[in-house]
Amino acid sequence: MAPPVFADVQAAAERLSGQAIRTPLLENVQLNELCGGRVLIKAETLQRTGSFKFRGAFNLLSQIPEGQKAAGVVTCSSGNHAQGVASAAAILGLKAIVVMPEDAPRIKIENTKGYGAEVVFFDRNRESREEIVASISAGTQMTFAPPYDHPHTIAGQGTCGLEIAQQVRELGVSLDNMLVCCGGGGLTAGVALALSEKSPGTKVYTVEPSGFDDTARSLAARQRVSNEPGQSSICDAILTPTPGEITFEINRQLLTGGLSVTDSEVRNAMRFAFNTLKMVVEPGGAVTLAAVLSGRIDTKDRVTAITLSGGNVDPAVFSSVLKA
Amino acid sequence: MAPPVFADVQAAAERLSGQAIRTPLLENVQLNELCGGRVLIKAETLQRTGSFKFRGAFNLLSQIPEGQKAAGVVTCSSGNHAQGVASAAAILGLKAIVVMPEDAPRIKIENTKGYGAEVVFFDRNRESREEIVASISAGTQMTFAPPYDHPHTIAGQGTCGLEIAQQVRELGVSLDNMLVCCGGGGLTAGVALALSEKSPGTKVYTVEPSGFDDTARSLAARQRVSNEPGQSSICDAILTPTPGEITFEINRQLLTGGLSVTDSEVRNAMRFAFNTLKMVVEPGGAVTLAAVLSGRIDTKDRVTAITLSGGNVDPAVFSSVLKA
Repeated sequence: MAPPVFADVQAAAERLSGQAIRTPLLENVQLNELCGGRVLIKAETLQRTGSFKFRGAFNLLSQIPEGQKAAGVVTCSSGNHAQGVASAAAILGLKAIVVMPEDAPRIKIENTKGYGAEVVFFDRNRESREEIVASISAGTQMTFAPPYDHPHTIAGQGTCGLEIAQQVRELGVSLDNMLVCCGGGGLTAGVALALSEKSPGTKVYTVEPSGFDDTARSLAARQRVSNEPGQSSICDAILTPTPGEITFEINRQLLTGGLSVTDSEVRNAMRFAFNTLKMVVEPGGAVTLAAVLSGRIDTKDRVTAITLSGGNVDPAVFSSVLKA
Repeated sequence: MAPPVFADVQAAAERLSGQAIRTPLLENVQLNELCGGRVLIKAETLQRTGSFKFRGAFNLLSQIPEGQKAAGVVTCSSGNHAQGVASAAAILGLKAIVVMPEDAPRIKIENTKGYGAEVVFFDRNRESREEIVASISAGTQMTFAPPYDHPHTIAGQGTCGLEIAQQVRELGVSLDNMLVCCGGGGLTAGVALALSEKSPGTKVYTVEPSGFDDTARSLAARQRVSNEPGQSSICDAILTPTPGEITFEINRQLLTGGLSVTDSEVRNAMRFAFNTLKMVVEPGGAVTLAAVLSGRIDTKDRVTAITLSGGNVDPAVFSSVLKA
């Protein structure tokens, strides 16, 4: 499928009006002081379902042709896209089946079920989620809702970038740098698309966990490369093996580069969010905050925006992070 | 001193412009569904210093006469007003001494010191904080900054209500009920003053912890009554013994009534804020959320605003609440 263009992001914004929350762009005095510049925090933790994923899911599901609606949707997700699809399906009156890893955070599994979706588990080490999805949808008219590599998904996530551009303008500042939490690259591609039109002087960077910086390395290599197998990270939401085809086609053209942070830096950022920002951020949603706190990018006398992309973290995990 | 009037709130808003954060008025789909109406969340957890107290402190400190500035300020506080005064003093270049109970939350003590204030501890069971304040300021020109019972403090907190009225108007709705977290009644009186002018149809209620519902009982008795001694609650920020004189003079005229919630309901609300709102709320800041979740007020088909008045909670306390 052809990559989405800016007009698709605008159309998505109209579809999402009244459904998605226009999340606030927050600012914290202490964070600004630490960074020596202004850090603008796009709080997608406050989005419907607790992450930005609702945007892309609703944009995709609301465009399912009439004749295919009755068959419902199927998707695979470690949890945030699962909740986005489940919630959007409930609003649109569609049946949803979500294939999730057995070891996904409990809060993500329970919320997905809570929105009314059927959850099918698989073993990450022994089974292929693509095969399970294929077997579920075989012989049906079910729509597959990809977690990132689809033009409608990307355009939906782009509405986050559109809001950032508007909110930055309302503040009367110009945005130097934009840091986006990156798994498969859907949010990044969407935000980059929006800013390329509405804030063309802004440099856009991905932030990924160390060992899962496939997008950073792909950008450097100018082609899609994969992560080494056998690595681990607490950032469950963004542990994708390789950039998406469509997302990378956009990102390689619009991005300045990719950054990465360690799990230890992510834990520090989650504690900072608790103690100072008073926000609950999940590991994968805190990588951008970790990047600015760890000096991965020069924030001095600059205006830097960061996505806090999700807040769906199990209480036990959160408590263990606070303790460390 | 004479109680403040609406014009004092407007003047405070001008003083606070560029210093206090215009905190967002948030909305959560799941909370609305649970309540059968719209619940608008004034997130003062996101205010400078992590609670609304910065508003009143800055408004008071910025009006200290030139000749008294060099002597600095002194105050007593369980922690949020302490941080508000310490932060405002730092901005204004004033020396600050804060008298705090030994058993105040560590995060509040450390932050108060972090803003540059000197902290003097006292034993809640054996010492009088008023006497300690008196001995510190004796023979000096130090300004005492009361935590709630001062016209400037109340007018400053009123800017929170002014913002709520503006934000409700931006949403195009009319506000039926306003629930305010209440200790000495400063935030309540300020918010009530602002709404009496800008949203006169709104009914304003206090919410207090069970056993510390002195304002609720004072409103019912039409005179200031005190709490029974020897009671306890996790809501450290709002355990005042009796309503303030000035605050009650305002509140008895403008309030509809007072509600109370148990510690168990507060813990539930804090967990809901973590799991669903993705916000860090301290016990005393969660009493209004507890009130709407526990059905203390009829939210069905109504528009109800609540203050989440602070987020300064120790990690260990927060973790223990999540576990329960």
